[in-house]
Amino acid sequence: MNLAAGPKDKELRLIDAYWRAANYLSVGQIYLLGNPLLREGLRPEHIKPRLLGHWGTSPGLNFCYAHLNRAIRARDLDMIYVFGPGHGGPAAVANAWLEGTYSEVYPNVPRDEEGMGRLFRQFSFPGGIPSHVAPETPGSIHEGGELGYSLAHAYGAAFDNPDLVVACVVGDGEAETGPLAASWHSTKFLDPVRDGAVLPILHLNGYKIANPAVPARIGEEELSLLLEGYGHRPILVDGADAAGMAGGIEPLSVHRRMAAAVDQALDDIARIQREARSGKVTRRQRWPVIVLRTPKGWTGPAEVDGVPVEGTWRSHQVPLPGVRNDPGHLAQLEAWMRSYRPEELFDSGGRPVAELRALAPYGERRMSANPHANGGLVLKPLALPDFRDHAVPVDEPGATSTEPTRALGAFLAGIVSANPDNFRVMGPDETASNRLGALFEVTDRVFQGEPYGTDEHLGPSGRVMEVLSEHLCQGWLEGYLLTGRHGLFNSYEAFVHIVDSMFNQHAKWLKVTRDLPWRRPIASLNYLLSSHVWRQDHNGFTHQDPGFLDVVLNKKPEIVRVYLPPDANTLLPVADHCLRSRDYVNVVVAGKQPALNWLSMDEAVAHAARGIGIWEWAGSDDGADPDVVLACAGDIPTLETLAAVDLLRRHLPDLRVRVVNVVDLMRLQPPREHPHGLPDTDYDAIFTTDKPVIFAFHGYPYLIHRLTYRRTGHDHLHVRGFREEGTTTTPFDMVMMNDLDRYHLVMDVIDRVPSLGGSVAQLRQHMADERLRLRAYTREHGEDAPEIRDWTWSG
Amino acid sequence: MNLAAGPKDKELRLIDAYWRAANYLSVGQIYLLGNPLLREGLRPEHIKPRLLGHWGTSPGLNFCYAHLNRAIRARDLDMIYVFGPGHGGPAAVANAWLEGTYSEVYPNVPRDEEGMGRLFRQFSFPGGIPSHVAPETPGSIHEGGELGYSLAHAYGAAFDNPDLVVACVVGDGEAETGPLAASWHSTKFLDPVRDGAVLPILHLNGYKIANPAVPARIGEEELSLLLEGYGHRPILVDGADAAGMAGGIEPLSVHRRMAAAVDQALDDIARIQREARSGKVTRRQRWPVIVLRTPKGWTGPAEVDGVPVEGTWRSHQVPLPGVRNDPGHLAQLEAWMRSYRPEELFDSGGRPVAELRALAPYGERRMSANPHANGGLVLKPLALPDFRDHAVPVDEPGATSTEPTRALGAFLAGIVSANPDNFRVMGPDETASNRLGALFEVTDRVFQGEPYGTDEHLGPSGRVMEVLSEHLCQGWLEGYLLTGRHGLFNSYEAFVHIVDSMFNQHAKWLKVTRDLPWRRPIASLNYLLSSHVWRQDHNGFTHQDPGFLDVVLNKKPEIVRVYLPPDANTLLPVADHCLRSRDYVNVVVAGKQPALNWLSMDEAVAHAARGIGIWEWAGSDDGADPDVVLACAGDIPTLETLAAVDLLRRHLPDLRVRVVNVVDLMRLQPPREHPHGLPDTDYDAIFTTDKPVIFAFHGYPYLIHRLTYRRTGHDHLHVRGFREEGTTTTPFDMVMMNDLDRYHLVMDVIDRVPSLGGSVAQLRQHMADERLRLRAYTREHGEDAPEIRDWTWSG
Repeated sequence: MNLAAGPKDKELRLIDAYWRAANYLSVGQIYLLGNPLLREGLRPEHIKPRLLGHWGTSPGLNFCYAHLNRAIRARDLDMIYVFGPGHGGPAAVANAWLEGTYSEVYPNVPRDEEGMGRLFRQFSFPGGIPSHVAPETPGSIHEGGELGYSLAHAYGAAFDNPDLVVACVVGDGEAETGPLAASWHSTKFLDPVRDGAVLPILHLNGYKIANPAVPARIGEEELSLLLEGYGHRPILVDGADAAGMAGGIEPLSVHRRMAAAVDQALDDIARIQREARSGKVTRRQRWPVIVLRTPKGWTGPAEVDGVPVEGTWRSHQVPLPGVRNDPGHLAQLEAWMRSYRPEELFDSGGRPVAELRALAPYGERRMSANPHANGGLVLKPLALPDFRDHAVPVDEPGATSTEPTRALGAFLAGIVSANPDNFRVMGPDETASNRLGALFEVTDRVFQGEPYGTDEHLGPSGRVMEVLSEHLCQGWLEGYLLTGRHGLFNSYEAFVHIVDSMFNQHAKWLKVTRDLPWRRPIASLNYLLSSHVWRQDHNGFTHQDPGFLDVVLNKKPEIVRVYLPPDANTLLPVADHCLRSRDYVNVVVAGKQPALNWLSMDEAVAHAARGIGIWEWAGSDDGADPDVVLACAGDIPTLETLAAVDLLRRHLPDLRVRVVNVVDLMRLQPPREHPHGLPDTDYDAIFTTDKPVIFAFHGYPYLIHRLTYRRTGHDHLHVRGFREEGTTTTPFDMVMMNDLDRYHLVMDVIDRVPSLGGSVAQLRQHMADERLRLRAYTREHGEDAPEIRDWTWSG
Repeated sequence: MNLAAGPKDKELRLIDAYWRAANYLSVGQIYLLGNPLLREGLRPEHIKPRLLGHWGTSPGLNFCYAHLNRAIRARDLDMIYVFGPGHGGPAAVANAWLEGTYSEVYPNVPRDEEGMGRLFRQFSFPGGIPSHVAPETPGSIHEGGELGYSLAHAYGAAFDNPDLVVACVVGDGEAETGPLAASWHSTKFLDPVRDGAVLPILHLNGYKIANPAVPARIGEEELSLLLEGYGHRPILVDGADAAGMAGGIEPLSVHRRMAAAVDQALDDIARIQREARSGKVTRRQRWPVIVLRTPKGWTGPAEVDGVPVEGTWRSHQVPLPGVRNDPGHLAQLEAWMRSYRPEELFDSGGRPVAELRALAPYGERRMSANPHANGGLVLKPLALPDFRDHAVPVDEPGATSTEPTRALGAFLAGIVSANPDNFRVMGPDETASNRLGALFEVTDRVFQGEPYGTDEHLGPSGRVMEVLSEHLCQGWLEGYLLTGRHGLFNSYEAFVHIVDSMFNQHAKWLKVTRDLPWRRPIASLNYLLSSHVWRQDHNGFTHQDPGFLDVVLNKKPEIVRVYLPPDANTLLPVADHCLRSRDYVNVVVAGKQPALNWLSMDEAVAHAARGIGIWEWAGSDDGADPDVVLACAGDIPTLETLAAVDLLRRHLPDLRVRVVNVVDLMRLQPPREHPHGLPDTDYDAIFTTDKPVIFAFHGYPYLIHRLTYRRTGHDHLHVRGFREEGTTTTPFDMVMMNDLDRYHLVMDVIDRVPSLGGSVAQLRQHMADERLRLRAYTREHGEDAPEIRDWTWSG
């Protein structure tokens, strides 16, 4: 079959009919409450009272869909479709319904007149479906509500899916965003041998909401240079005149050009893959990109109330806003809908006519039914080696040191070896710096750019992906997880805020999918936050921000989990647990610097499972009522707390101190707030209801109050944490600047245990003097005093 | 003067000497505690115990600095320098010291041997200065700790500064980030007539931390296409061999090429500006960009311990890590430092020799002393028309409706008219959608792309900047403010999370500058968050996220302010106050949909000034002890609260209800936590200490608990807010999904006022039935019931 010759006119006319059907269904969703097939003239009561949706992008999305469908059938492609302009929800829903998938997933919306009526009514309607390409939309892995991530999601889906082609429509508005601009460089991280392909379709319709879109307004030549600079070979399809208008351009001629462009792009992709997989070509090649220029709101009303609409920003949302009250608008809507000739498209029962039904691919080849877009269907459980193999021997607590993330790195290396094609580690160039270097004993960083002789652990394929863009790390990983694979994102703690909003969107996606039984559970999104606030040797204040946890905890409790393992052994079962979990976002904060080991592996496993516990070996309350509780969450707060306990034992040997360590932050919340929440009786048994609690926390102290304000003993809780004081300095100087140091914790105890009375004023002064003396030492010598650096737990 | 002919070899050798001096000072900062001039052989005690800093990028930064200095002198340029790779702090500090600025700002660090010793010691040292180009660094408006924003900051600085050239070194690592990738398109928003110029210098040294950097590894041809696609004309300066190594390349030849490139670029800039300003050329032209390729860690140790370092990732931080304990490393450090021939560079007193001193520009022409980089010095107060001119007439509360942001838009238009060259409004294409359209009666959106005939309110210059990149909006505005101007960023509330991390960094910058008296106060960063969580007609769950406030409140209380004006009239004095303020980040949340007017302008001014108040006209406690307090913050919570009060008055006429409205969220905190905090006595007088408080809040309810947990009455506080339930639906459905609706507030009152007893069980059931009935209405009719839509306050 000579594909390059392209389809005949007859087939193009069928594609056009399919497109008209999808456009008709898109308009119907935005406007109609009833009379879906226009069996009678439109009347105001057929119109929704609130017209909510986005028409402007929909015809372009439908256009691409129809053409990709042709290619899927012609080539038996395994393809999914990422709708960058996700607000074009009507288009995605229309096509899923045309293909029959929608009715299979939602049997209450059959593929007939009744179903069409429900399809129209439910859209952007209370109790219905959202206006975007949401989790509710079959075939979607990408809502597109917040623009910028389509292409990163597409690449994430393509990695390790060698037979998959991910078509990704990028709107010219979205193309202005930073994350999207960076995503084009994903070409340097895609392995044509082991990965699938991404076919970006840059859709120029000239406008974002009310403004011109940059890529549509820089001229064809400059845009082509840009895309070539990104490593692409652009294929231009021009379906609009120089002013972005329909002008006299015949849709059929655009169909012809688009069909040829799609064929050319897919031929290119096939050739690139063939040459790479046969070993014939090893250098990076230029992947195709289609640039499709069509009028915004194409086929919609050319003019409304005397001003141009089709081809302008006015078609972005609802081109005819007054249909319910303005008979002229109503008539114009009816004429618009009839212009698609629905009588040719749907039979008397409202079903797409047989010719159109036959145009859609079959079964799982339908993009709306492709199992890759419902990743849980194709999810293989991760093969997890025994994390205990990487246990650090701990004979007594606080005597030896380990870099926790180094132990994790060895575990991750084992996971990579056991899962060569469905596990990846993403990070913005910090994998080695975060002490996960063991990974490089078993795999490379994937990089398809030009190598230098001095590069290390780089390869054309690899399980580690490093790019100095948290957006890409997150977007790639989301696409990878949403298509049924597993992974981990390791980041500098402070800079994970760069993807706050992407986290928000992913958590929202997961929240919605919980109510959609047809969406099968996917692997959790796992963050490892290292290089954290308390240990920023080479860097300073800009690198000190533990506030991501606050963002995370605003999301639905069913979705989010936060872990602060105190040492290397505890980190391992926590990581194991996260990697086994489904449909969560897990955040693990762990240091990369040498830190004291507190727990043997058996103890660590038990502690991690409980998530919170009294460290009896560290306390002096002998199980009886303590005078004070010293609680801690996070590695450095644990260190300072234990060091404070050490001071208290020496200076106030009769004080009954209880030490509580928190691994799973959610344990602090009441059980009605979070499924991990400790029952009040257990909480009270651990923290007491009336004794002072000095809580040393890794992050901003308010967070602990927010989690515990309903607990009985909350009024006695005093939290130390990061209070936004920092710079490039030593570990002790950092805790001291934030009053989290061991001496200050002792002072806090003295200030809050009334039974100590005034007799300890001298001790308090001594502590205050000590911390000043030690700060002075640090500032004189440029490093912390030996008693700080070399401190160990004396047991 | 034929500048294109370039400098003679003698001048190039002087430039090289200047560069060597800066490199020497950079190395010295990283390593030395003493012996700054190497008057004796290096001994371990001369070396810092902790070697913290980044060498790799520093020689390149110094190289550019020396060449720009030559151009400044030759052309009498007004130029500032943005250090994209801000971790190259030693370079910025070295040059400020060489130029004399450092000693002027910090007289304790004179420009002599003693000063050099202090300069070296203080760097990355406890109690000293940070390792980055921080606020402490004279001449900087950009710390560069979090990479990605250099170019946006540079453009922000250039806007409305027609005589300024902003040189901006972009590292090849930073170039991988999304925000930086988007920033190149700033060329479409720069007006060559009214704005200054940005000269980007893309510095390729092959690596980020441990990984190759994409722009350095795609080949010269592809990179050139990319930059041309961004609208630039690249000028290549090759100072490294094909493997990124120094090879046999003579620095002098690179100096020669760089000098020519800088001359060419500046000639281009001058020509573009001349042609545009004379009206000769109106089309967008290609601005120059210099691409400088040099070895990473150039002039540093070529090999250490047998492996290559110069030209590789190993030179990123400290190339010789073992100098204190390893005599070989120590000797290598000494040889390295002596290779710069310090004896030629500094006189016997440690001062730069006269020839070098003469190379630096004079006075404010020094980039380290340019007043634009200390924006408060050049800050003109904003001319603010009287906001009262835009007052909405309010004869009685809750009877009429206004779109609050529309009133603000008229005020902003007045500000634009009164401040034609130092005020801008940024937004990601939402200025009109956010009802600020009055701006377009007095100004345009600036856009230098190709126009379509159907565009409106676009022009080659204009006060409104719209680009679908929150990163660019924020980055441009930061650069604009940091150079002494004023502005406002209006954003969809949910998507301002995209710049969480940029906000963090700016707030950190402001926090540090508070302790630097030489940094003069700048205008506050003002956010208007509209299209907020409760009113997302065309969009849904992805557009519903009020969590930015939680991020903001983690920053220093001296810096952050959050305002939730309940109506149009209150919004105006709040905006006026924010625009007059200095050194803050102000966040204002205001709706764009028609909302009831509660306060006359006089009342609004008083209410805004107090920040919190009892609305006596709404309550029924007659100033006496109330039975219950209904508090609210935010426009929709205020509406639902007042509607709940209305229900209570009808159904429980004897209940004494107090209504409290909060505009300034910080009033809720104790005064020791925030300067705006209400004294406890005032708080208790407003909220009582023992009565139930039902608080209807705009955002996540935890935030109110976090602010108030230390207040006496906190145990009686019950907060309703957004609990992460949403979709595309009606206003009432949204509040109902989150239990913030009027009926649920009444139920909350019933549940929490013990004196009501069981007698109101029937009323509670009635309320529960009503909300279900109204929800059913909404779901049947697709809009809210008339009693919801048309509700007004009955007075």
